[in-house]
Amino acid sequence: MKLILLSGGSGTRLWPLSNDARAKQFLKVLRNEETGEFESMVQRVFRQLSSVVTADEMIVATNVAQTDMLRNQLGEIPIVVEPERRDTFPAIALACVYLHSELGMPRDEMIGVVSVDAYVDTAFYERVGELGELVYNTGAELGLLGVKPTYPSSKYGYLIPANHDVHMDVQRFVEKPTEEAAEELIEEGAYWNSGVFVFPVSLVLDILESKGFPIQYDLLLSEFSALPKKSFDYEVVEHLSEIVALTYDGYWKDLGTWNTLTEEMSSTIIGNGALSEDSVNTHIVNELELPVKVLGISNAVVAVSADGILITDKPASSRMKDMLLDGLFSRPMYEERRWGWYRVLDVTKKEDREILTKRLCVHAGRNLSYQYHHYRDETWTIISGLAIFVQDGVKRLVQAGDVLQISAGSKHAIYAETETEFIEVQMGTPLVEDDIVRITMDWEETMEYCS
Amino acid sequence: MKLILLSGGSGTRLWPLSNDARAKQFLKVLRNEETGEFESMVQRVFRQLSSVVTADEMIVATNVAQTDMLRNQLGEIPIVVEPERRDTFPAIALACVYLHSELGMPRDEMIGVVSVDAYVDTAFYERVGELGELVYNTGAELGLLGVKPTYPSSKYGYLIPANHDVHMDVQRFVEKPTEEAAEELIEEGAYWNSGVFVFPVSLVLDILESKGFPIQYDLLLSEFSALPKKSFDYEVVEHLSEIVALTYDGYWKDLGTWNTLTEEMSSTIIGNGALSEDSVNTHIVNELELPVKVLGISNAVVAVSADGILITDKPASSRMKDMLLDGLFSRPMYEERRWGWYRVLDVTKKEDREILTKRLCVHAGRNLSYQYHHYRDETWTIISGLAIFVQDGVKRLVQAGDVLQISAGSKHAIYAETETEFIEVQMGTPLVEDDIVRITMDWEETMEYCS
Repeated sequence: MKLILLSGGSGTRLWPLSNDARAKQFLKVLRNEETGEFESMVQRVFRQLSSVVTADEMIVATNVAQTDMLRNQLGEIPIVVEPERRDTFPAIALACVYLHSELGMPRDEMIGVVSVDAYVDTAFYERVGELGELVYNTGAELGLLGVKPTYPSSKYGYLIPANHDVHMDVQRFVEKPTEEAAEELIEEGAYWNSGVFVFPVSLVLDILESKGFPIQYDLLLSEFSALPKKSFDYEVVEHLSEIVALTYDGYWKDLGTWNTLTEEMSSTIIGNGALSEDSVNTHIVNELELPVKVLGISNAVVAVSADGILITDKPASSRMKDMLLDGLFSRPMYEERRWGWYRVLDVTKKEDREILTKRLCVHAGRNLSYQYHHYRDETWTIISGLAIFVQDGVKRLVQAGDVLQISAGSKHAIYAETETEFIEVQMGTPLVEDDIVRITMDWEETMEYCS
Repeated sequence: MKLILLSGGSGTRLWPLSNDARAKQFLKVLRNEETGEFESMVQRVFRQLSSVVTADEMIVATNVAQTDMLRNQLGEIPIVVEPERRDTFPAIALACVYLHSELGMPRDEMIGVVSVDAYVDTAFYERVGELGELVYNTGAELGLLGVKPTYPSSKYGYLIPANHDVHMDVQRFVEKPTEEAAEELIEEGAYWNSGVFVFPVSLVLDILESKGFPIQYDLLLSEFSALPKKSFDYEVVEHLSEIVALTYDGYWKDLGTWNTLTEEMSSTIIGNGALSEDSVNTHIVNELELPVKVLGISNAVVAVSADGILITDKPASSRMKDMLLDGLFSRPMYEERRWGWYRVLDVTKKEDREILTKRLCVHAGRNLSYQYHHYRDETWTIISGLAIFVQDGVKRLVQAGDVLQISAGSKHAIYAETETEFIEVQMGTPLVEDDIVRITMDWEETMEYCS
């Protein structure tokens, strides 16, 4: 069996810590009980899966905005990148075709699809493995994992079994019932639908072929935008009749709101913060150096990042998506990239010129690509590290105290010999991230310059 | 009569918006009803006093940390600067001696002392003027203004009159009684002591002389540190027997906590912020560009500045002074100066070197003094304006896009021809504000360079 980890979504409900480039699954607010270190949801799921399957049995399906974060947090795992955001059906279909046409996965082998934002015990993933065997042995079209409900939630989907054997056949589904209806469903013996799908890869390949799509990876990639923008539930599951299920009776939680996420945080304060004694059940998550002080406020979350400041009552945090999110900065103020990270320190406009001040860190052995800008000048003041700076073909070693002036049109790149940080002042009209022209250069030769 | 405005105190109770250089009376959170513009407490008091006395009848007693702010907010008014912070007796004594020996104020002329942090109607200051006449006509030693209590506060001092005529004689004082005791005092006919003092300047001159202090301004200034570090109440008022009082039956409030201050704010949001509809009686005061969102939190204050972030329940804000204020940044992150302002964008330490990134604004016609630093290098990237930059005796015109490198030991100054802003990166060990050696230079000659 191969496992597809679905890593999608933006993070408006966990603003300001999550944004397009840093969806909720990348927030390092959980604690790895073994090492004591902070870990993100995606790291936790990956660690749990690694105890059930081997790394080469996993593949991550994601979008281009998340690939740098995924590589930073998970290392060199296989990733299938959706060329644009559509929905879960196109994402799963592309990953299936990749596994089949690029990695030679046989049509009758099992696929398991899991999302990266469920907070569960490792036993959950052991059940996914058992579900694979069940689908294979019964010849069913699809297998689902039902979670034993702990309360009549109106936010989840329910699956209603036809029988109550160890291996259930699924009779029907109910999406987000009222609490009253949910209570009746639970009495009937219904389960929460965990969102796990297990099926032979042929299921998806057949559907694609029947719709006239190629099952060759590079061909499907180029037709990706033509795939139906539909969920896997809607496009596939609803049309099947032979669905089996296993049940899971353990911890299962969607960490999608500040309320549910903070319940799993091991500490009430992450970052520079202080709570008065009478601030009960309040959490601070502060990514800035700015001190945060909370006095006499209970049952709240204070979340602070370079994108903004949120103060929310815990139950109210489920309303995040509906409101409050207009008028925000249209650009991310902090981003992790493959080469390191940057933080926006200041944004202003003076005399029709926009000015952006950033602090950047380039990790040792990484580089910013050789590039130039049409409209902006940059001043870099190196504050730490040792790096090779290339400007218009001329290489020089730079270190703390060096000031580099880069006018519009001037080609430049930097390679960090040791971790290098600098303060950058950008000035231009317009001042936009995509005013960047990348040029290929021979880094091998450049690196030799240093030795 | 001359009026002494006492402007002292630091602002720990209104952290993070107030700090040593910006005490609570400088926060522009009130609204001038006539012009519709924001104004600070000190601006409000000055405006109200100006309708009762002329500008040359007022003098401000303050400390050196507040003089730039006072001049920025009030313009060119006379200021007596205490060489160090002591208490209200030394502050009032120095101002009295200044008025007498420098401005020739006769010994029998009246002094009125008012503080800048009371929020009152203009009628309050009219009563101060009437009090001056009363003290003069009765020959009393001192006059006080009693405020008609509106509730049995345990936080104020009470004065108990000997009679209940229009002009009262004061029988005794009670400082901060319990609420029960306050209720009895109010039944007895007691008043809140407003903290206004009116007396002939001879009162203070006689006390100084009797203690062997000079009543010549420059001499007293040099002996300032020997003056008793006591309040005027303790050092003077308690020893007097002939005290008269007038009463004031109107609005009077100490805006010393976030709770009381926000009650007088004309708008629930100052700066970039948003409140959900169910966030009732909550105020946002945000000095940063970072958006602040409040969801489902009522009766709270969210105050955000470059110094930090406070979220406090309103009644709890009176406990600010007791707690939460350790571990704060030891340096102000935003300061207004005579020449303009600066904001700290980033503070970090790399390879034993401290790095501070600032944005500075020098107002048109102002300059940073000619100076050099022993331990730090600076890079300035000019982002707007036109200025004369002087480095080691060489002058040049600079404008947006120019980058100025200033090594330790290099003498430099800047004169803003038009309002000029720049991003400054400081690097050094140690990196402290007072690593600065100022050198005199002929600015007249420099300015001519421009024309």
